[in-house]
Amino acid sequence: MALGERGGWDKSESRYCGVETDFNDDMPHLLSFNLSSGGFDFVVASLMDPNYRPSLMEKDIGGGSHVLPFAGSDLVLSPSQWSSHVVGKISSWIDLDSEDEILRTDSETTLKQEISWASHLSLQACLLPSPKGASCANYARCVNQILQSLNNMQLWLRIPLVKNDDDTTDFIPSGDSWELWNSFRLLCEHHSQLSVALDVLSSLPSANSLGRWLGEPVRAAIIHTDSFLTNARGYPCLSRRHQKLITGFLNHSIQVVISGKLNHGVPSVSLDSALDHTGTNVESSQRHSLRPYLDYIAYLYQRMDPLPEQERFELSYRDFLQSPLQPLMDNLEAQTYETFEKDSVKYIQYQRAIGNALVDRVPDEEASSLTTVLMVVGAGRGPLVRASLQAAEETGRKLKIYAVEKNPNAVVTLHSLVRLEGWEKTVTIVSCDMRCWDAPEKADILVSELLGSFGDNELSPECLDGAQRFLKQDGISIPSSYTSFIQPVTASKLHNDVKSHKDVVHFETAYVVKVHSVARLAPCEPVFTFTHPNFSTKKSNQRYKKLRFEIPSDTGSAMVHGFAGYFDAMLYKDVHLGIEPSTATPNMFSWFAIFFPLRTPVCIRPGSPLEVHFWRCCGSTKVWYEWCVASPNPSPVHNSNGRSYWVGL
Amino acid sequence: MALGERGGWDKSESRYCGVETDFNDDMPHLLSFNLSSGGFDFVVASLMDPNYRPSLMEKDIGGGSHVLPFAGSDLVLSPSQWSSHVVGKISSWIDLDSEDEILRTDSETTLKQEISWASHLSLQACLLPSPKGASCANYARCVNQILQSLNNMQLWLRIPLVKNDDDTTDFIPSGDSWELWNSFRLLCEHHSQLSVALDVLSSLPSANSLGRWLGEPVRAAIIHTDSFLTNARGYPCLSRRHQKLITGFLNHSIQVVISGKLNHGVPSVSLDSALDHTGTNVESSQRHSLRPYLDYIAYLYQRMDPLPEQERFELSYRDFLQSPLQPLMDNLEAQTYETFEKDSVKYIQYQRAIGNALVDRVPDEEASSLTTVLMVVGAGRGPLVRASLQAAEETGRKLKIYAVEKNPNAVVTLHSLVRLEGWEKTVTIVSCDMRCWDAPEKADILVSELLGSFGDNELSPECLDGAQRFLKQDGISIPSSYTSFIQPVTASKLHNDVKSHKDVVHFETAYVVKVHSVARLAPCEPVFTFTHPNFSTKKSNQRYKKLRFEIPSDTGSAMVHGFAGYFDAMLYKDVHLGIEPSTATPNMFSWFAIFFPLRTPVCIRPGSPLEVHFWRCCGSTKVWYEWCVASPNPSPVHNSNGRSYWVGL
Repeated sequence: MALGERGGWDKSESRYCGVETDFNDDMPHLLSFNLSSGGFDFVVASLMDPNYRPSLMEKDIGGGSHVLPFAGSDLVLSPSQWSSHVVGKISSWIDLDSEDEILRTDSETTLKQEISWASHLSLQACLLPSPKGASCANYARCVNQILQSLNNMQLWLRIPLVKNDDDTTDFIPSGDSWELWNSFRLLCEHHSQLSVALDVLSSLPSANSLGRWLGEPVRAAIIHTDSFLTNARGYPCLSRRHQKLITGFLNHSIQVVISGKLNHGVPSVSLDSALDHTGTNVESSQRHSLRPYLDYIAYLYQRMDPLPEQERFELSYRDFLQSPLQPLMDNLEAQTYETFEKDSVKYIQYQRAIGNALVDRVPDEEASSLTTVLMVVGAGRGPLVRASLQAAEETGRKLKIYAVEKNPNAVVTLHSLVRLEGWEKTVTIVSCDMRCWDAPEKADILVSELLGSFGDNELSPECLDGAQRFLKQDGISIPSSYTSFIQPVTASKLHNDVKSHKDVVHFETAYVVKVHSVARLAPCEPVFTFTHPNFSTKKSNQRYKKLRFEIPSDTGSAMVHGFAGYFDAMLYKDVHLGIEPSTATPNMFSWFAIFFPLRTPVCIRPGSPLEVHFWRCCGSTKVWYEWCVASPNPSPVHNSNGRSYWVGL
Repeated sequence: MALGERGGWDKSESRYCGVETDFNDDMPHLLSFNLSSGGFDFVVASLMDPNYRPSLMEKDIGGGSHVLPFAGSDLVLSPSQWSSHVVGKISSWIDLDSEDEILRTDSETTLKQEISWASHLSLQACLLPSPKGASCANYARCVNQILQSLNNMQLWLRIPLVKNDDDTTDFIPSGDSWELWNSFRLLCEHHSQLSVALDVLSSLPSANSLGRWLGEPVRAAIIHTDSFLTNARGYPCLSRRHQKLITGFLNHSIQVVISGKLNHGVPSVSLDSALDHTGTNVESSQRHSLRPYLDYIAYLYQRMDPLPEQERFELSYRDFLQSPLQPLMDNLEAQTYETFEKDSVKYIQYQRAIGNALVDRVPDEEASSLTTVLMVVGAGRGPLVRASLQAAEETGRKLKIYAVEKNPNAVVTLHSLVRLEGWEKTVTIVSCDMRCWDAPEKADILVSELLGSFGDNELSPECLDGAQRFLKQDGISIPSSYTSFIQPVTASKLHNDVKSHKDVVHFETAYVVKVHSVARLAPCEPVFTFTHPNFSTKKSNQRYKKLRFEIPSDTGSAMVHGFAGYFDAMLYKDVHLGIEPSTATPNMFSWFAIFFPLRTPVCIRPGSPLEVHFWRCCGSTKVWYEWCVASPNPSPVHNSNGRSYWVGL
């Protein structure tokens, strides 16, 4: 039973809620108590008697005949019960970085035995106890060894959600538990099966600090009953900040686990049974003492706003890397035109821009005498032709349109559109690449939609440079300018997806991606700007920009896996269009962000800014970007000479 | 003409001395003046008129008909003259990180034109001017592009040898020019054709700071005439510290280049000609004004101590990576035995240790009655048998020897040795692996030489554990203990050699190597110790060690490419044997160091210690090491589960 169905939510990824239990060697009872009567979806249960120590066992028994004290044999539950309803909880006493060598070797032996048992049971995940001190190298070395030959089980490293700015505890270096996680995962080299289970405690770090975790592979949030408040009716509830955190987790497919004892005098439950909530001696018909906490989480989940249609449409694209289009080299397919033409918001903006330009160009008194020559360069299947005609009609201006399109397949559709709509007298179709068309006259207005997610990355500058030959000296280009933007992000999922290719090429490629599970570490900075028309004689489309990002001081340190890129375009005067988060045009879906990866993720700390360099380079047959980090530690220059990623001219 | 022949030096790598010249478009004259009459081996000469600026050229001439103002056509010198005697000096005005965009693009154009010309001439190297400011990302990006498709020309980046502890100049971040080099080469990803030409000035940084450069790819030292002092006779000479630096450079195959004007009133040269030393209007029969500086460098070179025989023998092994032996899995070849047996120093130490043990074990009064049973385990072709017999003779003790050897090929030699020497009564040959031999009696003394460069890395612990079954409870093992040591090193040559394999496996392998061009950044720390015999019941040969290294505060920052490893063995009581630099046994050549690489070099700074973890792991069929850096930034754990490198049992 999941947290309930919600309209407009993605049903593919249901949200589940589990419960952490103590060791119990009657697994069938444990399961039926917590699932059937408790209503939980799974248990996080100890697999091994917590009193077990390998070093004692050998002394007691000797030889190879003893049986490890696991909670039941594999036969006590069905295979699907084990794998769907049990997360293995590794013995919490283990401490692989202890100074005590016996404890250290006992810990290593036990950890390997328990993981091996959990693999044998095909569990989906095991919960690893939090490192005991600031040093975790030996624990990480051992887990890393295990990861090298693990089946597809996930290992959830338990990390308390703690960041004390002034308190450098012995336990957590710099008082920030993120540092502990970061060391551990670096030692394990960002292994994709190593993830995080966050212990949510009663006090929470700052919002910026919490935000970092959205880019990390958090799989579970363990909420302690201590962290709940009591509402007027005696029921558990969460603080506003906790609520926001939990709904954020649910929105990122993070499972919730309830942990602890009943802490609230919920009317219907007697305290007697509450003390024994993990189910040893409690009647299974009795209500589970932690049920009110589960009910509250389910309430939070069901109360969440349904996803808007656009978001729902984009669900399957979340954090999924796509290669950017090469519209100059390749012809788009009908399916692609179909998708983009549906983006009505975009064409409304174009229509407004064209309308304003027409009015500026032709005074009311000449509206019936003057005909404006408008050229749509890259007309595709005609949406901008339609927008132009509608703008003309709206403003009462006379228009002559040339629709220039290089894709002969789109020209077919364009022809039938013109015939169907009866636009033959106004619209001339030109089946030609704009860069080599010999226009019969010059245009007043040049309209194009050649922008990529990063603005110039689909070579709009080069195309419009080619087309402006047939724009009048005082003519208007729509768009009139565009600027790209980047911001550093934590994006462990994207990093691992890029890494899975095991080559440099993929780390030197930009991807179009609907970024979702990322942490945006600093506001965007502008990168490259292009303005059209540009009649200067020494113009170049090469660009070079040095950028500095400073993360907020309360964030703590954070990992930069790469840069999310966006654009904003001025269509005409104040009519703009874009996806830069702070100014994004609402409800427009034609563009996802772009992602520039870093071959080696860079850890940044508040107070030492991240210095990044971006280049737009142009050759005779291609355009490409190069990028690097110069500070705090220089990275290699990525994509030298466009060796890995380029856009063909 | 090189700096002269010296006895006992490696003739394969002669040392040359060049001279930096101004732009001169009469290349034949420039060459003959500086080489024939000056005595220099090569010139570092500007290739292009320093007044050239691409942006001005286009304005002046237009079209594509102008000729670039290079110093002569390729035909003015023979191909071998160009390649053997000319290092191209790239225009020193270029500044790719200027705020001035015209200067920046002019610089990029010129740099590419000059490098292209130098490649056309097949020059061996070009000297790149020093970055003009603290930021060098655009310069590095451009050089990196060039490096991607360069023929085998080297690019020498000119770096002033400067480190001001208190003076943070705008030019050099933190006042340390090494930082500038480090940023540049990181941006160019340690490219093997990018190297350093150091400008040696009149004041020198501290010895520790200079020492860093020995691990960097320094190809040339440019010594300014300003840096010379004047001796009593009016001739140029260098300070003690400068002398030491230059001989250090010569010892590391770094070319010397003289730069500047005559600064010394050398009696035989008139000042008139001195002002024009680069040779425009000077009679070629006249003595070159910079000749006294060359003579002084040649004097320094010829005065250097000849290399001892052992060093000469090892010349070809310098900085050459070898895979460690697998003596347990593979049988050594006759050639290998031959080499090791020549190491008389080693056997003298063994003989001393055995002698002392015999005397301790058998009092003088029982010398003629008691026979000591001595087993040589891993007897090879017999050198330790011989050492044992000599020790017995020397001390007047009676000996019975079992020579145990698993390699049947070595046993053949051993048999003929015993027959030849008439040792049949004393020596019993056992053709068997010591780990499974069923000995007829127990030994008083167990002698072995199973040590690798890192002590236990050829599995001495496992072999001796197997052999001690037949050692008496109070018996003696020679060696009685051994300890491995590591220290962090800068070793760019080794790093690049490992990197050239383009895989992770080679970065997770330890190599035997005669380390020469490395900078030892901190004193060695002990890693693992093994003691024999070890009769405790719960012994394990697994080991785990956490190490901390602190670099001296006057070193500045430095790059750690990996760790040099060594061992020291106690043979018996105070008789030791080892290669740990501070206690190394003199003139012993059986072992080079071992090198543990790091996949990503780590930059360390004084005051933030380097924390390193090393593990010795044992499986049923193999033994391996894992290692990682935990601080300042965690690295991945290297060689997890021995996936890349292991020693077979």
